[in-house]
Amino acid sequence: MSLCETLGRIQPPNRRLLEQAQSRLDRLTKPLGSLGRLEELAAQYVRISGELKPSVPRGMAVTFAADHGVTIEGVSAYPREVTAQMVLNFLRGGAGVNVLARHAGIAVRVVDIGVAYEFGQVPELIQKKIMWGTKNLLLEPAMSREQAEQAVTVGMEMATIASQEGIGLIGTGDMGIGNTTPSAAITSAMTGLPVDAVTGRGTGIDDAGHARKVSVIQRALDLHRPDRADALDVLRKVGGLEIGGLAGLILGAAAARIPIVLDGFIAGAAALIAVGLQPLCRDYLIASHRSVERGHQAILDHLHLKPLLDLGLRLGEGTGACLGMSLVSAAIKIYMEMATFGEAGVSEKG
Amino acid sequence: MSLCETLGRIQPPNRRLLEQAQSRLDRLTKPLGSLGRLEELAAQYVRISGELKPSVPRGMAVTFAADHGVTIEGVSAYPREVTAQMVLNFLRGGAGVNVLARHAGIAVRVVDIGVAYEFGQVPELIQKKIMWGTKNLLLEPAMSREQAEQAVTVGMEMATIASQEGIGLIGTGDMGIGNTTPSAAITSAMTGLPVDAVTGRGTGIDDAGHARKVSVIQRALDLHRPDRADALDVLRKVGGLEIGGLAGLILGAAAARIPIVLDGFIAGAAALIAVGLQPLCRDYLIASHRSVERGHQAILDHLHLKPLLDLGLRLGEGTGACLGMSLVSAAIKIYMEMATFGEAGVSEKG
Repeated sequence: MSLCETLGRIQPPNRRLLEQAQSRLDRLTKPLGSLGRLEELAAQYVRISGELKPSVPRGMAVTFAADHGVTIEGVSAYPREVTAQMVLNFLRGGAGVNVLARHAGIAVRVVDIGVAYEFGQVPELIQKKIMWGTKNLLLEPAMSREQAEQAVTVGMEMATIASQEGIGLIGTGDMGIGNTTPSAAITSAMTGLPVDAVTGRGTGIDDAGHARKVSVIQRALDLHRPDRADALDVLRKVGGLEIGGLAGLILGAAAARIPIVLDGFIAGAAALIAVGLQPLCRDYLIASHRSVERGHQAILDHLHLKPLLDLGLRLGEGTGACLGMSLVSAAIKIYMEMATFGEAGVSEKG
Repeated sequence: MSLCETLGRIQPPNRRLLEQAQSRLDRLTKPLGSLGRLEELAAQYVRISGELKPSVPRGMAVTFAADHGVTIEGVSAYPREVTAQMVLNFLRGGAGVNVLARHAGIAVRVVDIGVAYEFGQVPELIQKKIMWGTKNLLLEPAMSREQAEQAVTVGMEMATIASQEGIGLIGTGDMGIGNTTPSAAITSAMTGLPVDAVTGRGTGIDDAGHARKVSVIQRALDLHRPDRADALDVLRKVGGLEIGGLAGLILGAAAARIPIVLDGFIAGAAALIAVGLQPLCRDYLIASHRSVERGHQAILDHLHLKPLLDLGLRLGEGTGACLGMSLVSAAIKIYMEMATFGEAGVSEKG
């Protein structure tokens, strides 16, 4: 399915079901509204899935990995080869996202969408490499428009595959040394906020590194002048391949009526691109947590999303998304498994 | 074991282990500190349990149920018989705490410590009834000093049994129509804050009901003048039997070196009593969430606890504690199951 077809398929979630879901929630043996955001999540899930009596969904985190030409400018605390090393760590099950996905009973898929490393034959790695890392966005566009569209398409395909496998809840994951730099650039471009207001310390750069990072992003935006009305232009000029993959994953999930749980800052940047391409996909988004990374709150505000968790996380990979997906599952179980006042013979409010 | 013996057994958690735990956390394949509060939780668990390599603990929520004589004053939106009805709902597995405990893989124990109902022979119900609900604290002390001590002892025994069963993580639960009234009274008495600053709407009373509730609590405190330096005096005069049970559960868990995850407002009031009896137990507390109930934040501030979740919950029963216990388990899995940089062959920070 082409990008245009997918964008056209996305519909607003079913509003009528929202009232029916709320009516059921109000009959459960608890004071009205006393499970707060769990009730909101359950109602949102019903609305998106279109099922008034959903089963507890199987969840999947999709972690896109790619490299960034801009790392040569010294914007990250870690060397570039860590991207590929971490991909192998994911495949062996030793990374944070693996642990939290197992905890939450969620599958993890790892996609090489642009790592600057030849993996050869590696079982379980989904090989969709578009290029060996982006170009250095300080000097030239990160990728061509065709490559940007290709990255988005890869993400959409991952959502389609998940849907065909019966997955009912998708989480975003990312790995890419340097990727808070394109994410901050996208955030500034799409929200109009100043670069220094949305640029954080990523994996932990020092003051000098942070100043350098802000300067690199500012100069890149001045050079490329990405057009915020054209999200693919922003993605292409100052984005990243994994960010494009995530934007496509969001759009594909929305087209398949699957709620998508965002991880942190990188996922937020991808959501800005996705919502730029199709504003209706916003209703399919669930923000798992508020990242420590400066700029994430600005994204959440811009998208009118309220995060579920605020645990000081800034790892990425999909770690926060896994914790958020566990809360979504809990919410659906509340909705489906709690007894009603009638069933339990409990007196209602006097 | 007597109350005095238990209080004497509680020791400060092992500070030396904290450094060793942090050292392991810093070798895991993630930027330093990037898992935020999950790392803090793991380190706290190590410190409390005394095990540098803990296994993932089996968790148990203990839900104490009791009635309150003060409900005759119209301080709750629900009729008093709901306490017993909900106990039966717990035992059938249909309540919120059951659903969230199953979600988190946690056992639930239900203790009748003072319900005004004759349950007869009911499998699975732990029968420790001390009296048929408290007296009306507006007119007389809620219970005698002996009954207060007995309630605390029941809670301590539950922690001892859990410890003997190999439970490594305990959560607090409560059920008692009217119990935000004694909890607010305890909070005002123990923190010195004005009654209206710590009195909320419980299960959902209207403005007139709330004004009545504040007035009832104020008059009770004026009548009894509980001595905040003597937490048993506070519990006895304006408390509740389930609150006493929870205070004992906290103390018993601390004595057994088991971390205890607090639910919301009622658990907070119990923690004020427990910390009043033995300040060292504070280090064993984990606040699962910030309740909507006014007064809970004051308790968290007083105890210097930062809640893990803020999901607009106000149900009680142990629902928030179950979600919090799941996060503690996730933290321990991160600590134990993630690969180190060395194991994974990942380059460290440049």
